[in-house]
Order: sequence, then structure tokens, then C-alpha cells
Amino acid sequence: MARQERAIRTRRTILEAAAAVFDERGYTSATIGEILDRAGVTKGALYFHFGSKEELAVGVFEEQLSIALPPQSSKLQELVDSGLVLARRLRSEPLVRASVGLALDQGAMDLDRTMAFGMWFDQNVQRLAEAKAQGELLPHVDVAETAELLVGSFSGVQLLSQLRCQRQDLERRVVVLFEHFLPSIAVPAVLARLDISAERAERVLAEGREQVGAVPAQASPGAVRASSAT
Amino acid sequence: MARQERAIRTRRTILEAAAAVFDERGYTSATIGEILDRAGVTKGALYFHFGSKEELAVGVFEEQLSIALPPQSSKLQELVDSGLVLARRLRSEPLVRASVGLALDQGAMDLDRTMAFGMWFDQNVQRLAEAKAQGELLPHVDVAETAELLVGSFSGVQLLSQLRCQRQDLERRVVVLFEHFLPSIAVPAVLARLDISAERAERVLAEGREQVGAVPAQASPGAVRASSAT
Repeated sequence: MARQERAIRTRRTILEAAAAVFDERGYTSATIGEILDRAGVTKGALYFHFGSKEELAVGVFEEQLSIALPPQSSKLQELVDSGLVLARRLRSEPLVRASVGLALDQGAMDLDRTMAFGMWFDQNVQRLAEAKAQGELLPHVDVAETAELLVGSFSGVQLLSQLRCQRQDLERRVVVLFEHFLPSIAVPAVLARLDISAERAERVLAEGREQVGAVPAQASPGAVRASSAT
Repeated sequence: MARQERAIRTRRTILEAAAAVFDERGYTSATIGEILDRAGVTKGALYFHFGSKEELAVGVFEEQLSIALPPQSSKLQELVDSGLVLARRLRSEPLVRASVGLALDQGAMDLDRTMAFGMWFDQNVQRLAEAKAQGELLPHVDVAETAELLVGSFSGVQLLSQLRCQRQDLERRVVVLFEHFLPSIAVPAVLARLDISAERAERVLAEGREQVGAVPAQASPGAVRASSAT
């Protein structure tokens, strides 16, 4: 195994262990020692990738956002894709689930949880700003307000889906969210061409994985940063 | 003081005490004994109004919804008003805040929190169904889906506002929410007449209070039920 690939795997193992421990014990009670035990790696390996418990939390947050999706000519389609894919991953990937749990953990007083929402907000702002520059948005749209609303609404929608049915209907709920939002922000010609179906997530994820397979280092900004430091 | 009025006040005192104890200790750890101490009422008085800890939680939930607002000819305007007023009360009334805290308390495993969302959902369904019957909604609107989305989105929006700035901008965020939603569900002639301003909450609350002053027993379904049992 190449050295870079090994570093990426170790980093992922540590993050998964940290996510599981945060999930079970809460961020405040969790210790680095427990995460080491769970991951089965040396202290040196952990501190090579993450300098502190907070950096581990940031790593878990980043995991939610760091996924390569196939680029689309419509930036609003990319926004929709990222929402649908996040819904899909929340159902299937414990690490992504833990990331949301951590952001919503009201007991984690010593963690700056606004950071998690901030990173997600920034990503939405960027996509919406690109959409605006391409003429995809109606003229009145305030990019920052819409991005913040999207982050808040998505958080609440997934929370209610978790409470009602363990997130089994989350993709459908995210479709309903976009169906209600997009007519207020997209120009009609773009709106008519958007694909907002629940089945799209699976397809987009598969396409993304193929691209990642071709260029592995592009999979995750976090992974790239850590491995290039090797 | 009339007997009915006294019963309403006692009930309110008990609910405020319960809300404070749930807020500080979490629902699971809170005991009836602590709530009695805090309220300064007898065990008999508490059990006259509430049969169990769970009934106290239901009472706290109901408080969020049981407020008389001035009726409007547009049912969508009533929907908007209830959202704006809830935002305002979340900032100013500890009991309403505790109600939301309880609904989002992930540690309250022995409490059916879906009930809180269910009651709120039902209220939205009713208003939207009335709006639909009056021809205020676009033909494709699925009342249940829209009501559930509204409950989820509002929950997330208030959560993010709490995290970012202790809910100081909550009314503005709820305005943004409605501005994004309503164009997808309201017929244009109704949409153009809706008042979705942040300042409206205060005005509507004041009008509601005047009406409540005239007919006190209509203030809260819970209060009515309890006092008529006296």
C-alpha cells in the first residue's frame, strides 16, 4: 500500500473511532484515550493527524462536507445534489450521522458548534454565489440569507425525520424542502430543468465515486491536507 | 379572586416551575418533588392539574400552541401570524423556550417527543386545510407535506438562531423562511396581500391579548379544560 493511501486510511479509522466515541459518550465526556483504544492506533499516529480533541471534532464535521460530486452546468443543480447526497449519507454513513449529532449536541459547551454550521453555510454561499453569477437566481435573492435558511431548514427537517422514523424518509423530505424553496430563488428556465428526485442521490454518489477512484487524492480536502503533510 | 381564575394561575405557576426544572435538569432527571418545591404548591394542587410527569411535559408543550390570535380572513395570514408570534414568544417567554428545549432534548428517552411536534403539525394542517378550502393554496399543494416541512424548518431555523445569537434575530429568520416558502404554496392574489414583516408579531400579540382580556377562558385550551374541571 502506498504511504499516502495508508495515511488516508489511518486518518479515516481515527475519525470513525472519534465519531463513535462522541456519539456514545457526548463530546464533553469523551477522552483521547478512549478514541485511541477504539481506533487501535498509537498516540503518535493520532497526534500526527489531529492535534487535539477539538481538531478531531473539526475532522468529523469536515467529513460531512468533503465529498466529490460530479460538476453540473447548473450550480443550483449542484446545490440540490449536495442536499440529496447528504440526506443519503446521513442514512448510510455513521460518520456523517455522528457529525450532525455533534453539531446538535447541546451538552458540548466547550466545543464551538457554530463552526460546523459555518463550514456548511460557506459551502452553500459559494454555490449560490456561483449560481447568481451565472444568472440562475432571481434578482432579489440575498445569497447569505438563503444559504443560512437552507442550513437551518435542512437541520430541522433531518431532526424531525430522525424523530419520526429514524431518517427512513429523509431523501423524500429533502425533495419536499427543495420543491418549496427553489421556485422562490431560481429563474423559471433553470427551475424547469432541475432534477429534484429522491433517486438522484444514489446516481450522483456513484458518479462521484468513479471520479474519486480515478483521482483518489481529490476525495477529501482533509485527507489531502493530512497526506500531503506525510 | 374568582375560583376559576385562581385555578388558571396555579396551573400556570406549576407549568412554569416544571419548565424551569426540565430546562435545568433535563426531563429524565427531573422529579415531581423538585417541581413542587419550585412551584411552592401542595402535592394535591399539582395532582389536581397534572396526573404525572408526562402530563406536565404535555402541558408545557401545549403552552407553545395555546395562544389566541386575532382571526384573519386569510388563513395563510393566520399561519404566518402564528409563526411570527411563536418566534417573538421564544425570545420573551421562558415557558415557550422550555417547551422547545423539551421537544429537542435528545436525552429524554422516556418521553414521547414526537407528540410535541405532532400537536404543532396538527395545528398547521388545520390552518393549511382551511386555506386550501378557501382557495388560497396552489392546486398542487399537499397539506400534510407542507405542514411537516414547516414544523421541521422552523425547528431548525430557531435552533440555528439560538446557536448564532441567542435567538436575537429569530423574527427576521422566520420572515425569511416564509418569504421562501409562501410563493410555492399561495395563489398570487393572496400572496400579494400577506403581511410577513417582523414587526407584525408584536401587533398581533397585543390584539390577541385584548381579546383574551375580554374572554379570559378562551386564552388556552389547557386552562379551559383544567378550570372547567374545578
